[in-house]
Amino acid sequence: MSRRRREGAAVGATPGGTAATSAVGLRRVVEPAGVLPQAAYRLDARSEIAADEVRIRVERLNLDAASFRQLSEKHGGDGAAVRAEVLEIIGERGKMHNPVTGSGGMLVGTVDEVGPESPLPVSPGDRVATLVSLTLTPLAVTDGLVDWDGRSEQVPCTGHAILFARSIVAVLPDDLDPRLSLAVFDVCGAPALTARTVRGYRAPRVAVLGGAGKSGSLALAAARQAGAGRTVGVVPVPAERDRLADAGLADAVVLADARNPVALAAAVTGALGGPADVTVVCVDVPGCEHGAILATAGGGTVVFFSMATSFASAALGAEGLAADVTMLIGNGYLPGHAEYALSLLRTVPGVRALFTDRLTAD
Amino acid sequence: MSRRRREGAAVGATPGGTAATSAVGLRRVVEPAGVLPQAAYRLDARSEIAADEVRIRVERLNLDAASFRQLSEKHGGDGAAVRAEVLEIIGERGKMHNPVTGSGGMLVGTVDEVGPESPLPVSPGDRVATLVSLTLTPLAVTDGLVDWDGRSEQVPCTGHAILFARSIVAVLPDDLDPRLSLAVFDVCGAPALTARTVRGYRAPRVAVLGGAGKSGSLALAAARQAGAGRTVGVVPVPAERDRLADAGLADAVVLADARNPVALAAAVTGALGGPADVTVVCVDVPGCEHGAILATAGGGTVVFFSMATSFASAALGAEGLAADVTMLIGNGYLPGHAEYALSLLRTVPGVRALFTDRLTAD
Repeated sequence: MSRRRREGAAVGATPGGTAATSAVGLRRVVEPAGVLPQAAYRLDARSEIAADEVRIRVERLNLDAASFRQLSEKHGGDGAAVRAEVLEIIGERGKMHNPVTGSGGMLVGTVDEVGPESPLPVSPGDRVATLVSLTLTPLAVTDGLVDWDGRSEQVPCTGHAILFARSIVAVLPDDLDPRLSLAVFDVCGAPALTARTVRGYRAPRVAVLGGAGKSGSLALAAARQAGAGRTVGVVPVPAERDRLADAGLADAVVLADARNPVALAAAVTGALGGPADVTVVCVDVPGCEHGAILATAGGGTVVFFSMATSFASAALGAEGLAADVTMLIGNGYLPGHAEYALSLLRTVPGVRALFTDRLTAD
Repeated sequence: MSRRRREGAAVGATPGGTAATSAVGLRRVVEPAGVLPQAAYRLDARSEIAADEVRIRVERLNLDAASFRQLSEKHGGDGAAVRAEVLEIIGERGKMHNPVTGSGGMLVGTVDEVGPESPLPVSPGDRVATLVSLTLTPLAVTDGLVDWDGRSEQVPCTGHAILFARSIVAVLPDDLDPRLSLAVFDVCGAPALTARTVRGYRAPRVAVLGGAGKSGSLALAAARQAGAGRTVGVVPVPAERDRLADAGLADAVVLADARNPVALAAAVTGALGGPADVTVVCVDVPGCEHGAILATAGGGTVVFFSMATSFASAALGAEGLAADVTMLIGNGYLPGHAEYALSLLRTVPGVRALFTDRLTAD
């Protein structure tokens, strides 16, 4: 076992932001030509790898929450119909890229073959999770997803996936249930960017919408560790309120519908003693942009992590409210984000408890 | 004429970010209940005003570029069909809110009546432009848009519009052609946020995609004034390249299709001597997210002003490229944004020339 493997490190192949375009998987794009894999309609998921690629034997897909919700609601909770549509999407597009939500998810599996020129720090046999979206990962399914009932985001799956030179992959740590690590990796951009944003203020008031969820609970823990003056977790139902209160991750926990701007702003302002300096949106339903903006102080920052966020609604909402707030598109990647999220899981009991409960509930 | 009128100042009624929700026009929302006006499907555009409202006699609408382009392309450039659809949208929704692009535009008119409790610094007879989007402005048209041929974003229009207490409105300055002021106000968030972002770096490299357009040319001028080390304007066609080069607003001007990430990154990196520290996206076509991210250095910032930006594409694109870039949703409002944009028009000859040429071309 390599040292890197023991660390469970998330390592990118090349620094972000360079123009190293040959490493981003262009050769796998079938149509339209000239776009990057995420923007492509269809990828080539053939199993043969190029010299700088890696092939993964897939064990499990973890569908993005917004994507699974859309599919489940579309089919009225009919698991067989959801499964059929997921299979159809993957077969048609060569990747799990929900055409409605535009989102994907991630996967876990075992490294099968590493091209001689791959810069990724993995070896055949390593158990890994991909930290790049399924929307840009070539994927082929060979078992018809027979072991999945279509009623959970966690999809047991046999097949293969391809990683490019400039991908991000994390070896699963030995001390944690792999399902736990996967759940953390799925949202590990949220705590890292929350911490960075909170450090830009002096003891700020922080509101996390959807505070009892995966990204929300990690964001609350990160905000406190990064120096938040006071934090509030906003949740939609009493059961989540009780769970989050028990976890002790926030100074206050309030019930509010994040899609109702007036109610949300009142709840946040009441709990924090004033509007939030930093508002983190982790609610995976559409229509939370205006409430987040209205709940945020002038000069504050809203971090949108929800894939259900509408760019136009946020941009025009801030303008329409004459709100001088900085609005960040939640980037799923920051250097060290996976290690940081795992450290929160290991060291903050409330985070561990919420994640473990969620696994048990699944 | 009041002092405020002479200044042509843009003035908001209340500080951004407070929970002063009664001032944001909730009483005008017809459906669905509980949302803010921008999120509403339908507004009540009746002409009677409440005590804190203002009624404007409309002279002209300025459609958002993305909205007009979508309508024009949908109808194959048939102006009569475009006009009919705009009339239908306004009649159905009580506002000019393009259901496909989610965007609106702005308007110019004359203050007709000011409620006794309105905090807006305007008086009946003032010629004004609204700086909040048409997507949240109650609007009724009474002339069937007979004077518009459906072939330009500038729409001569008779009718009325309503401003709320927390709206932003600018009195048109006397020293400028009103059409010029309107064109500047329409995009005045871009130079203000560009300047703020550039000041966060030391002599940064700045790339502006769509540098010859309205927001793009103002952003280039703002970047230089705010201390950019080197700037490049990216344009799609030779005619724009020549216009922007003549205007002298950028240190370099290059031709590239912003929808082609590989070509764009190569062009920007070549012109700047390395990837951009700040990339400003002012191109009103979809699909520019990945190129902007790929052209930006690790630790850099991408400012998305185009209303054609896809949130999911940006978020997943950065993750997929392992790019540690800050991504900002372009906020149309910053304190003092209208005055700042007008000052650039007045003091930077290249900006004035591009805006004047554009008016002449219309």
